[in-house]
Amino acid sequence: MDGLLDGVVVLDLTRVLAGPYSAMLLADMGATVIKVENPKGGDDTRSMGPFVNGSSVYYANFNRSKYGCTLNLKEPEGKEIFKEMVKRADVVLENYRPGTMEKLGLGYDVLREVNPGIIYGAVSGFGHTGPYSKRAGYDIVGQAMGGLMSTTGWPGGDPTRTGTPMGDVLGGLNLAVGVLAALVNKAKTGRGEKVDVALVDSVVSSMQNITMIYLAEGRIPQRIGNRYESTYPYDSFPARDGNVIIAAGNNKLYAILCRVMGRPELIEDPKYLNVKDRVANHAEMREIISAWSSQFTIDEVVKLLNDAGCPASPVNTLDRVVREPQIAEAREMFPEIDQPGIGRMKVTASAQKLTNTKSFPRKAAPLLGEDNESVYGRMLGFDGEKLARLKEQGVI
Amino acid sequence: MDGLLDGVVVLDLTRVLAGPYSAMLLADMGATVIKVENPKGGDDTRSMGPFVNGSSVYYANFNRSKYGCTLNLKEPEGKEIFKEMVKRADVVLENYRPGTMEKLGLGYDVLREVNPGIIYGAVSGFGHTGPYSKRAGYDIVGQAMGGLMSTTGWPGGDPTRTGTPMGDVLGGLNLAVGVLAALVNKAKTGRGEKVDVALVDSVVSSMQNITMIYLAEGRIPQRIGNRYESTYPYDSFPARDGNVIIAAGNNKLYAILCRVMGRPELIEDPKYLNVKDRVANHAEMREIISAWSSQFTIDEVVKLLNDAGCPASPVNTLDRVVREPQIAEAREMFPEIDQPGIGRMKVTASAQKLTNTKSFPRKAAPLLGEDNESVYGRMLGFDGEKLARLKEQGVI
Repeated sequence: MDGLLDGVVVLDLTRVLAGPYSAMLLADMGATVIKVENPKGGDDTRSMGPFVNGSSVYYANFNRSKYGCTLNLKEPEGKEIFKEMVKRADVVLENYRPGTMEKLGLGYDVLREVNPGIIYGAVSGFGHTGPYSKRAGYDIVGQAMGGLMSTTGWPGGDPTRTGTPMGDVLGGLNLAVGVLAALVNKAKTGRGEKVDVALVDSVVSSMQNITMIYLAEGRIPQRIGNRYESTYPYDSFPARDGNVIIAAGNNKLYAILCRVMGRPELIEDPKYLNVKDRVANHAEMREIISAWSSQFTIDEVVKLLNDAGCPASPVNTLDRVVREPQIAEAREMFPEIDQPGIGRMKVTASAQKLTNTKSFPRKAAPLLGEDNESVYGRMLGFDGEKLARLKEQGVI
Repeated sequence: MDGLLDGVVVLDLTRVLAGPYSAMLLADMGATVIKVENPKGGDDTRSMGPFVNGSSVYYANFNRSKYGCTLNLKEPEGKEIFKEMVKRADVVLENYRPGTMEKLGLGYDVLREVNPGIIYGAVSGFGHTGPYSKRAGYDIVGQAMGGLMSTTGWPGGDPTRTGTPMGDVLGGLNLAVGVLAALVNKAKTGRGEKVDVALVDSVVSSMQNITMIYLAEGRIPQRIGNRYESTYPYDSFPARDGNVIIAAGNNKLYAILCRVMGRPELIEDPKYLNVKDRVANHAEMREIISAWSSQFTIDEVVKLLNDAGCPASPVNTLDRVVREPQIAEAREMFPEIDQPGIGRMKVTASAQKLTNTKSFPRKAAPLLGEDNESVYGRMLGFDGEKLARLKEQGVI
């Protein structure tokens, strides 16, 4: 099946999460992504769990759909080989600490000389400019510096990170957005671009409407649990067997909720008449709804409200997520790959669902150096003898 | 200054957050985004706070860089006008409940007949397929259904949403990724595409390595506070005046931390020798580090560790985020616009920092119908008389 990015060649120097996730999105849509790893062990996540049969499923998940070659960028011959590859590529992705590529003699200024149309995409903790640029910045630093942790959690409780490395995920997505926009421009003008994305900036960009509260009102948004600043009732509520989400964020949905609760008089109650009234009186509103919801199971509340047209949902643990028919079946979010060393395994799909083409895991993740022959043979015309020498000398 | 998406024409039917955020990313990079609003009040966020001088800064923030026109898509003449606009556009974006565009007679199957090259981008709660498709799905439902809430928070505590509408943000980013990939393909083949993104899928995609723990080991990831499943010490720790982040996620950084703490003997201690040992003994490791960190202020810990090369960071509240020189000055994350009715105001920039072009707020957000004359006049050739009649009849 055709992919939207068929024919786009990406050299992927990234490791661990933010960069590999970004390149994975492109590879699932058909880009030829060549993961370039150091010959001594490759991407750190090859030795990070969880493991199956001694192989990392972490690595396999983020690097499916990609090809893999090894290359030592510290060797002069390795640098020359990389430049030859850059001549034949559209995109280079890296997530080293800023300055590393320059130290290797492979910064954007060098690579654009080699190929003026090259798109250079970098994701780092703080970005390639500014006083903190050279600091290593990891996910938790992005979540903390960008303001996300200060607003996640409960009144009186500690600042809280999200349950996934959200700084890395946001960084990877923002890098993909910038690189794809640069590819759109390149198709028209032939010109390249450097796309410099920071985890911290990506988190800051995710805080738009929360930051606006401080900028407009001078009020510092606090941790307020599961309710929202802008609307109510839109929160988690107690059910007999756990927590249930009810999202009646506007007057129409609030009226449905009141009727389902058998409390139609609340619709016209001036204390709860409009969104701003319900936000102001959220504590009392919460007690009224909790008294109702706690008589039912989670599944009963979800059914009663959704049948009437008001959004409600369970708080899924991950065993429930992977079995949810809407997610696993209809949306095909957990497709399988045949991973050498691991066998048949489920991975998490990308969220782009397409009509005329498809985004999906196109192949297993590469073993270390698995595609050296085809990459260096087909792309650069190296013969068996040369490949053997390069391997012997630790260049590939 | 040139933008990467100069010349790309986007018709933006979206409201509130996920869709407008996505279109904003494209507009900041130079796409001509025409926001098409209903003539009776427009986007709901025009009447949502925070307000300055009675105008919504929420709306202004997410809709800067865009043009605005009004159009009633329920009127037959409104539908015809929209189709004429689609003939001249590259992209249509919408975030209605699935089925709404079909009911209006403006679904992808109709619009692709009008313009086979059109890229149709939709973001909704559950996506356009599957048993829950027709349910309204809001941010909190995405965070709950997709597994994020179940893993955010503290042992023994409740499932916790993130401090920003992260489901909407992830949905907007994933939509932009799909639409831009479709533009890359369109530039080569002339073909259009439908990009169908769900908030729930977007959250699921953000959980990759967490979900993999369940898929590989059968263990359901729990709420574990600020530490991570895969490495330690990489957590928040007590300082004299609050919480401080220390991210010593590998052996090299751990050794730096031990030396700064004056505890070099811990480097070789078999209990903490490698990442897996430190994860296994995280509770004891935490006590050791807390005893040290609580003697200092946040700023002292941050300086001591960063000077030695180990990542550490304060947990910024939003008043600190907007003043942080790295974020506000070096990375220009809070540029200003002149918004009619509001005046000079700060907005939050996009995270794509470019070298040859620029992503930035290109203009103020439109007043309701502000660009009717130029859109319908220049794009479709309507004269003043026709515009007056359309306005009179409630079509625009």
